[in-house]
Amino acid sequence: MGSIGRVYLFRIPEGEEIISYITRFCEKNNVKIAVVKAIGSLRNPKIAYFVEEEGKYKEIQLKGTYELISLLGNVSLKDGKPFLHAHVSLGNDEGIVFGGHLVEGEVFVAEVYIQEIKGEKLERKPRDNGLALWDELVI
Amino acid sequence: MGSIGRVYLFRIPEGEEIISYITRFCEKNNVKIAVVKAIGSLRNPKIAYFVEEEGKYKEIQLKGTYELISLLGNVSLKDGKPFLHAHVSLGNDEGIVFGGHLVEGEVFVAEVYIQEIKGEKLERKPRDNGLALWDELVI
Amino acid sequence: MGSIGRVYLFRIPEGEEIISYITRFCEKNNVKIAVVKAIGSLRNPKIAYFVEEEGKYKEIQLKGTYELISLLGNVSLKDGKPFLHAHVSLGNDEGIVFGGHLVEGEVFVAEVYIQEIKGEKLERKPRDNGLALWDELVI
Repeated sequence: MGSIGRVYLFRIPEGEEIISYITRFCEKNNVKIAVVKAIGSLRNPKIAYFVEEEGKYKEIQLKGTYELISLLGNVSLKDGKPFLHAHVSLGNDEGIVFGGHLVEGEVFVAEVYIQEIKGEKLERKPRDNGLALWDELVI
Repeated sequence: MGSIGRVYLFRIPEGEEIISYITRFCEKNNVKIAVVKAIGSLRNPKIAYFVEEEGKYKEIQLKGTYELISLLGNVSLKDGKPFLHAHVSLGNDEGIVFGGHLVEGEVFVAEVYIQEIKGEKLERKPRDNGLALWDELVI
Repeated sequence: MGSIGRVYLFRIPEGEEIISYITRFCEKNNVKIAVVKAIGSLRNPKIAYFVEEEGKYKEIQLKGTYELISLLGNVSLKDGKPFLHAHVSLGNDEGIVFGGHLVEGEVFVAEVYIQEIKGEKLERKPRDNGLALWDELVI
């Protein structure tokens, strides 16, 4: 259980890579746990699907500019630094939607909301399935 | 109008059914009103589309493992107990997206954010259209 | 940086146009900055894709009733008044998903969460690329 800390609502400059920008923002502001949302438009986004059987991601490179319909993500610590995990859905010029784990994307427009969570340390650690994950919460 | 109560950011154990786990979490922690978000990966999710003319859901059973691109939902009371209503978008290994009302799904990975809302009681009641809904807010 | 103000979780009456209802709600309650989420079901939603090269939106009119899988948006000031910018993903009766910038949609069901942000004024201004956007945050 935690509580809400600082909140930020802002626009990322055009041309920035969205994952690295948000990560840099969190490092700079010392945000260690947060939830993140964004809408906007991304150029040439690269997404990925995690193949459970192979224990690794399959990457999907999209070409062109897509509406960023939803970015939902979270920030926690990985190797002692703020790490953003984000999933996106992306719309093309016919309204068809693609999506998955976000690897990278160049910002045309990105309106981002970051909500810091204050609470116990939340840390990603390598797991047998090939992913870096938090401990499970068993209830 | 309300205010924000407790917040929780955690990972559901692999193999759990996501709807029943979050419901159980809310019952256990006495969370009666909340907004919920999640990302991750689900196995064999079952989604549904509400057919307005028929007043009932048409279910769509997906096979295999899908990226959980977005889960947006809310918790309120139904028959006196916490009830989760959640919609999801899900991506396959080619980045194609499926989605709708979430009926059930087995967790491969689920990173969940629950934000409690403190305020007046919010309750679902059966309506003529076949759905259990809150009262409308007329302005 | 800001902090969280009032929060609202409610259902929009059936038959309302969703963008104009939320805008009216914010005007009435003097909400000037906020983040917005919704799930539900929309009739005949009109979405749009911003064509970067042309500096304008291409509209896509969908017919029928769609699951509102996700609405993510924000409220800020434009011409001195609360303005909602929202992106949506929408599912049809086979679970196929469409989405983009939301132009309008008639509510069948809409469960909406509005979270006010208290902080510095956030204002949309016309830009060279054809969009009305906030100032960029350079870090």
